[in-house]
Amino acid sequence: MTVWANMQAWHDHTPGYTERLGAAQGETVRLRLRTTLPVENVRLKLVRVGEIETHPAHEVQGLSGEGRWFEAELPVHEARVRYAWQLNLPEDHLNLTSLGLHHTRRGFRNWFQYLADYAAPEWAWKGVFYQIFPDRFRNGDPGNDVQTGEYLYEGRPVEHVPWNTPIDLRGDVHAHYGGDLQGVTQAVPYLKALGVTGLWLTPIFVSPSNHRYDITDYRRVDPHLGGEAAWDELVRETDRAGIRIVLDGVFNHMGNENALFQAALESDTAPERALFTWRDEAGKPPYHSFFDVPTLPKIDYGNEFAVQEFFSGEQSVVRHWLRRGAAGWRLDVAHMIGKGGTEADNLDLHRTLKAAARQEREDAYVFGERFFDPELALSGEGEDGAMNYHGFGLPVMQWLSGATYFGEPSRLAGPELAEILWDASHALAPQVQLSMFNLLESHDIGRALYRLGNSRTKYRAALTLLMGYPGVPCLYYGSEIGLSQAQAGNMPWCREPMPWDEAQWDHDLLAGVKALIQVRRAHPVLQRGSLRFLHAEADAVALLREYTDESGHTTRAAALASRREEAHPVTLTLPAGEWRDALSSERFRGGEVTLDAAGGRLLLSP
Amino acid sequence: MTVWANMQAWHDHTPGYTERLGAAQGETVRLRLRTTLPVENVRLKLVRVGEIETHPAHEVQGLSGEGRWFEAELPVHEARVRYAWQLNLPEDHLNLTSLGLHHTRRGFRNWFQYLADYAAPEWAWKGVFYQIFPDRFRNGDPGNDVQTGEYLYEGRPVEHVPWNTPIDLRGDVHAHYGGDLQGVTQAVPYLKALGVTGLWLTPIFVSPSNHRYDITDYRRVDPHLGGEAAWDELVRETDRAGIRIVLDGVFNHMGNENALFQAALESDTAPERALFTWRDEAGKPPYHSFFDVPTLPKIDYGNEFAVQEFFSGEQSVVRHWLRRGAAGWRLDVAHMIGKGGTEADNLDLHRTLKAAARQEREDAYVFGERFFDPELALSGEGEDGAMNYHGFGLPVMQWLSGATYFGEPSRLAGPELAEILWDASHALAPQVQLSMFNLLESHDIGRALYRLGNSRTKYRAALTLLMGYPGVPCLYYGSEIGLSQAQAGNMPWCREPMPWDEAQWDHDLLAGVKALIQVRRAHPVLQRGSLRFLHAEADAVALLREYTDESGHTTRAAALASRREEAHPVTLTLPAGEWRDALSSERFRGGEVTLDAAGGRLLLSP
Repeated sequence: MTVWANMQAWHDHTPGYTERLGAAQGETVRLRLRTTLPVENVRLKLVRVGEIETHPAHEVQGLSGEGRWFEAELPVHEARVRYAWQLNLPEDHLNLTSLGLHHTRRGFRNWFQYLADYAAPEWAWKGVFYQIFPDRFRNGDPGNDVQTGEYLYEGRPVEHVPWNTPIDLRGDVHAHYGGDLQGVTQAVPYLKALGVTGLWLTPIFVSPSNHRYDITDYRRVDPHLGGEAAWDELVRETDRAGIRIVLDGVFNHMGNENALFQAALESDTAPERALFTWRDEAGKPPYHSFFDVPTLPKIDYGNEFAVQEFFSGEQSVVRHWLRRGAAGWRLDVAHMIGKGGTEADNLDLHRTLKAAARQEREDAYVFGERFFDPELALSGEGEDGAMNYHGFGLPVMQWLSGATYFGEPSRLAGPELAEILWDASHALAPQVQLSMFNLLESHDIGRALYRLGNSRTKYRAALTLLMGYPGVPCLYYGSEIGLSQAQAGNMPWCREPMPWDEAQWDHDLLAGVKALIQVRRAHPVLQRGSLRFLHAEADAVALLREYTDESGHTTRAAALASRREEAHPVTLTLPAGEWRDALSSERFRGGEVTLDAAGGRLLLSP
Repeated sequence: MTVWANMQAWHDHTPGYTERLGAAQGETVRLRLRTTLPVENVRLKLVRVGEIETHPAHEVQGLSGEGRWFEAELPVHEARVRYAWQLNLPEDHLNLTSLGLHHTRRGFRNWFQYLADYAAPEWAWKGVFYQIFPDRFRNGDPGNDVQTGEYLYEGRPVEHVPWNTPIDLRGDVHAHYGGDLQGVTQAVPYLKALGVTGLWLTPIFVSPSNHRYDITDYRRVDPHLGGEAAWDELVRETDRAGIRIVLDGVFNHMGNENALFQAALESDTAPERALFTWRDEAGKPPYHSFFDVPTLPKIDYGNEFAVQEFFSGEQSVVRHWLRRGAAGWRLDVAHMIGKGGTEADNLDLHRTLKAAARQEREDAYVFGERFFDPELALSGEGEDGAMNYHGFGLPVMQWLSGATYFGEPSRLAGPELAEILWDASHALAPQVQLSMFNLLESHDIGRALYRLGNSRTKYRAALTLLMGYPGVPCLYYGSEIGLSQAQAGNMPWCREPMPWDEAQWDHDLLAGVKALIQVRRAHPVLQRGSLRFLHAEADAVALLREYTDESGHTTRAAALASRREEAHPVTLTLPAGEWRDALSSERFRGGEVTLDAAGGRLLLSP
């Protein structure tokens, strides 16, 4: 079920309602509730040792906003405290949880959650990310390009292909376009003008494939990407431009050319043997590997050597690159990392990884690739968030495009879209929701623009939701200038090289994307506000963000999106007050309004 | 959200849909889906290492029931496998999970769950339980009664009170009425005639209070209840009558008169010290105890001595009483049991407890008192089920009585009742749902009859839901003959002694209860069928149970309940086929019917 904007009682994580986030265990946090219901009194309930403890709430005066305010103290007694409100009314009472108002006590999984001792990477909330697949973004130094036949990969000579060569399956992992870190550095002015503040680079370490997810040396930048000097220069230039870089950590498996794996293969007594899980199963490599692919041996974190080498050791890979200027880690197939060839102890390992990262850089942003429902991993102790395929990108694009990323047709309508978005979002603690890495597309799935029939109108609706939604928005290189793909499908079709001939760019689209980014970056309500839904019909949805300060004053934003190409007047009820369209600056008053939702609208109040 | 009976696709745990329950890890289980949708094909999806694996389903012919059947093989690869179906339609596709049909992939927590290696205590599913509070049920031997002033308890002399003395607060834990095991043995013919097949006895071991939750000696039956001989005779007589006994295991804390605790107090070097968690906190006992009550020192399972003594040792308390004829354990405050004065490692400890119980008696029924949401504890590895306050008794009684057990008024309406029942139920694996211990009332909360204004009509509606609901139904002694309480409130008011003067009995009510019990026991669909909702309006709800055999033939039952005292015609749509009222034997055809729901109706088809 979805929680709608017209609720008669409210509580969220913003300062008017929650004094502060991430307090230490043992501390007490002031919580508030605001309601227009005729309550006789209000109680705060919390779970302790599987029991429900009741604490009084008292009414407070002098705060802004419609209705009455109540305040209670939450004892932060464990890492994740579950709490709810009880509103006692004449002849009735209601429970307020993250699911809304109910007459019954809901399951604890739906209660509000307070994460203790948790310092979120708030810089990421304020920013907008941009994903770069280095081989395809920009060739800054043709001198370092992989040359045709330079080496064999999977028994086949690699190929150098000219920049504008169309993607084909034959080339898939063997075709090298020549993009490099120098190219990214050259593009910093472009990225700064676009407004992005963070880059996620897919792997940059020494690796034989063009995607570099089969790493030969975790401590060296691939010379074909410019090597160490190019990295250092990129860090310098991005720092200057206020852009931070998140690297891609491929810690579930390595490439079979890695010296560690080669040493393990060479001798039965090599200490490196312990980094892998050996087995004897017909038809499979003699070691566990990623989907049984022989070139991708899986790392066994049942052995302390592996944990030290990659995560927690003084010279671990995680620490090394944070010291060298990275601002965080995107963790490849984070859900697979584990012991003994399995995902055993996955969450514990992620706790270890994050603790090391935070020691090295207190605001390191660590998020996992968890393509499927990540709820169980996101207790706050492991990754800060996850790539939000499950709770944002996949359902939004399914609704807008009428098909899944596999091309399965779907009649998903707006009300059910709102339901799954709410369901995935409310399952997470506030800081985790706000740290989710939201995306519409990536190097793994088809480009949004292509999936939307190259409709700029629909793509702008998608971007409106991306910029309006809780979590850190990320664009995929090139989509902002209209880069699409030649045929249907996921990777590799979505990895066309970025065109740098501006004549090929869609400048209107680019201007629109820039404007949306500016709005996102300028308004804290979009970066840290709460979430409710305002409206849903088959072809349109609208969501509300709210940020309430300590005095009870609320700033609001709304994102409205339609999946129609043509004008689509949508009637919805906005909270009272002055509103304006963030892009057109058109002004109007709250209450029932009818707005053209085609192409998306971002609205602000006041 | 609630899952309704008119779904166009269905899958459940009964043999037509699920070949067998509890298969071993590594095995494969045939699963089926039936649908009236125009599907092009069907896929089975399952979660493995955090990824979704897709398996084909093929259409099967020759099975009964409307629509088409599809079949797929589920690899049982871990202790709890999550799976869902995908139905591909022309221009659309749907996902079927325990939440119903959806256009989007729902969170894994809503997927179907298959528990591996799990043998449920199916005898309990087939039966009806009866809770006895021994001091108040029947005095079989006045010679063993506690005598006034026989000993001090909490510094006050205990009192012997005559059988029909009204409860008062002064007497609370000190007043002993004289009920004993001989009384229970004498009542075996009564219990057999009533139709119950299981007894849950609140504690029977040596203990100074009348409730005996403060145990002095876990290996001796209280002499005031008749001692060992009375136990042995009770086991003999109940065995003969086909009645099994579940004992009350108070394993979170013991009574302070227990020799183990006394030994720990006497010497700093006593090995018994390790059974408790010592502390030095102002205003609290120098050891952790149940809600800081000094007479109830908490047992610390951080020490292996405690684990062995109570759970897993060759002579453990758990094993001892199963050897002496008990059929299972109800675990007092199961959620609190843990290490170091906390609930740490609660689930692991319950796994240990259950494993020992099952070694002793392969069908031992083990369920916890988990007064609040028990979902996280019920993975199948710990207790078989829990006392179903959260997911049945509390919301049902709140709806019927218009108030919580604390007397807080509530306008909970039928649709929201259906929602919370569904929410709590679908969160559990099928065997756990069916092993939940359902109750309307107990020695801890007010009697249902009293809470319903002593309305027999409403109480029969409550009992109709109890007998119609998935899980093991339990009656509380005396309610079947109209035993109520003298004033509002929870314990001790609900502990009035059972009247044995039949002139005081409500024989009509008793006949009605017997009839309902007979229906429950005679119809496997009520014991192991699946659950959906048929209807909900403010004052009435109806639920559907289905049991589909391997040939696809479905047996159905429906439970309809109203919270009105007067006639309440309710119109609902029953599945097609012949139906009959289980009590009146009135016959009618499925489809839209209007039935008087007052007092509840149990319906069967065919």
